[in-house]
Amino acid sequence: MLELIRPLVVGNDSKIVLLSLDGLGGLPRPETGKSELETARIPNLHRLATEGACGLLRHVAPGITPGSGPGHLGLFGYDPLRYLVGRGVLEALGIEFDLRAGDVAARGNFCTVDAAGDITDRRAGRIPTDVCVRLTERLKGIRIPGVEVIVEPVKEHRFVLVLRGAGLGGRLSETDPQVLGKPPLPVRALDAESAVTAERVNTFVAQARTLLADAAPANMVLLRGFDRLPDLPRFPEAFGLRAAAIAAYPMYRGLAKVVGMDVLKTGGGFADEVATLREHWQSYDYFFVHYKDTDKAGEDGDFDAKVAALERFDAFVPEVEALRPDVLVVSGDHASPSVLAAHGWQPVPVLIRSRYSGADPVTAFTERACAAGTLGILPAQHLMPLVLANALRLTKFGA
Amino acid sequence: MLELIRPLVVGNDSKIVLLSLDGLGGLPRPETGKSELETARIPNLHRLATEGACGLLRHVAPGITPGSGPGHLGLFGYDPLRYLVGRGVLEALGIEFDLRAGDVAARGNFCTVDAAGDITDRRAGRIPTDVCVRLTERLKGIRIPGVEVIVEPVKEHRFVLVLRGAGLGGRLSETDPQVLGKPPLPVRALDAESAVTAERVNTFVAQARTLLADAAPANMVLLRGFDRLPDLPRFPEAFGLRAAAIAAYPMYRGLAKVVGMDVLKTGGGFADEVATLREHWQSYDYFFVHYKDTDKAGEDGDFDAKVAALERFDAFVPEVEALRPDVLVVSGDHASPSVLAAHGWQPVPVLIRSRYSGADPVTAFTERACAAGTLGILPAQHLMPLVLANALRLTKFGA
Repeated sequence: MLELIRPLVVGNDSKIVLLSLDGLGGLPRPETGKSELETARIPNLHRLATEGACGLLRHVAPGITPGSGPGHLGLFGYDPLRYLVGRGVLEALGIEFDLRAGDVAARGNFCTVDAAGDITDRRAGRIPTDVCVRLTERLKGIRIPGVEVIVEPVKEHRFVLVLRGAGLGGRLSETDPQVLGKPPLPVRALDAESAVTAERVNTFVAQARTLLADAAPANMVLLRGFDRLPDLPRFPEAFGLRAAAIAAYPMYRGLAKVVGMDVLKTGGGFADEVATLREHWQSYDYFFVHYKDTDKAGEDGDFDAKVAALERFDAFVPEVEALRPDVLVVSGDHASPSVLAAHGWQPVPVLIRSRYSGADPVTAFTERACAAGTLGILPAQHLMPLVLANALRLTKFGA
Repeated sequence: MLELIRPLVVGNDSKIVLLSLDGLGGLPRPETGKSELETARIPNLHRLATEGACGLLRHVAPGITPGSGPGHLGLFGYDPLRYLVGRGVLEALGIEFDLRAGDVAARGNFCTVDAAGDITDRRAGRIPTDVCVRLTERLKGIRIPGVEVIVEPVKEHRFVLVLRGAGLGGRLSETDPQVLGKPPLPVRALDAESAVTAERVNTFVAQARTLLADAAPANMVLLRGFDRLPDLPRFPEAFGLRAAAIAAYPMYRGLAKVVGMDVLKTGGGFADEVATLREHWQSYDYFFVHYKDTDKAGEDGDFDAKVAALERFDAFVPEVEALRPDVLVVSGDHASPSVLAAHGWQPVPVLIRSRYSGADPVTAFTERACAAGTLGILPAQHLMPLVLANALRLTKFGA
């Protein structure tokens, strides 16, 4: 898709805003038969749905629940099955670590081992974060020939390990045996490209064991979620857009950053994000604006809180419209139905409102109504071409 | 798709008609909120939509505006991303040149160069067509070892260059620098297969320069839109159909011809086309009937003219029905919304009316109504299998 699009991209001075409500999609509450979107008073979103074209976004495949990585990559126009962003990378992005293409990242835990080397606590008694910071300082002293070793604290017993260098592989087994009474496992390469990397990680673990010997309860490390940052085509070049991301949460800023968007400084609330959008309106063509509250409520299983989050969001819509974007898109990175209290596999409502978004029968921004929209059920990575088309930023394919 | 279909094809004496309205799909006029199809009085099309199954055709991919080449190849059952038909090929088809698989075609311009060889007029003052004819006669004298050189006049300063021979490549850069005051560029191969072809084109250009030295203002040539005619599976064999094309415009006749349809002689109006359909009814199984007026009005940005074109078309529908086709299909090769005054990316309404087209809720042939049809939003290359199925011309897949 990216290869198809690139030669068709043309420039103009249109403005595009993607309002992404994290965990947007929901499911009916059994008592009422209505989903969160069907319950909420969201007149502005319903009006946008009436004026624009609607559909449902499927981020990965039917029945597949997207994590935040694939959910966002899909929204950004990347095939999430081709460009995998795994746990280690997300953990690094979550602390705004400056990951580079080819870096291998892993989630680390400090843990407790006994004299025989068997694990007695997989989380080292959840040591305070300041102890974590002190112990990662020790680990930063580890030197491995041919690779740069970076260790950064996260919170309590958690840290991030990043290996940087040429030719690293990220297909590595984890060292956490997931049970007590056994020693950490050696890392094994899961493909040929990762063989040398596996040796280096085992060297890291051996040195960590020595450096932490006197640091009980945090006298050993466990590593999991190994992952290599894929060499993602840069969003600004792929789509010919000066692109900015506005997100209060570090992980979403990180995801935008790895595709090459400018990440704008913003405050912690959505009002701050909208203010940031306004401030930088002239400087960019495309804005990814992230709203977290819907996902938080959905994952908490709090139907009423999710309804309230949708209503709070709706009230900001006119402020965004006042900027007169040429293309306004509202969708999300995945569903988080309150009745699941987790991410869901359900396709997520999407609306595109532009001068050219077309004749569309949908008059409400809900799961059920959007199913009848002219966008159909759309793989998420096809959203960007549609958005560019609505901005008149694509020429025709073939003569 | 073609590989899947071929072994399933069975013969019978059913008749299939595809009525293709060029640039069919539209967009609402802001003043009324209604599209061209929603505005036009088209009772026959609405009745067919009521009786048949409806949906929307997407010819290339969401957001991608199809050119006429990919638009038609999709309707004919070919994947337009696999079988690319470029500018040079279309220009050759537009003069009904008998292109063959493997031919490389380019659009040519006569241009004016000064004593230093720099371009002073990219169109040679738009020389009259008879001068163009005379000068292409000179160019026909060019001989290049290992390749047949064919030059045909088009109109004013335009001509077509075709190279014919084994192993030619069509991935070539153009010679037009697109600015005045610079010399024409040498052709470069854009892939390894085109390297030898590039040398041959440069030989052609050098000889053309010599032959035209005294022919100012048309004393040089520019070449662009190089393209190789792909080796398209033949439609009659792929689908087991004696297939005829009825189109007044050369380019559409050309597109039908390159897939192996018989192109029937017809007059310049749609009444002539319908008469031609009637005359040849017994001799073919499948008819592609092309209606141009909708696209012309759409590309002119003339909403009312497009409405009128739809109404004129609708009046012919009973004449086609009177022939009692077993499967009647109405769709188009792309949208041409009047508000865009150009081809559009919007999916295009499609209806299939046969004895077996099924229970479908749609009762109007409009963009909005067809979005709710049982055909869904369908990649265009899936239309032909559906049409064959409705004609009972496909056996089941697998035991």
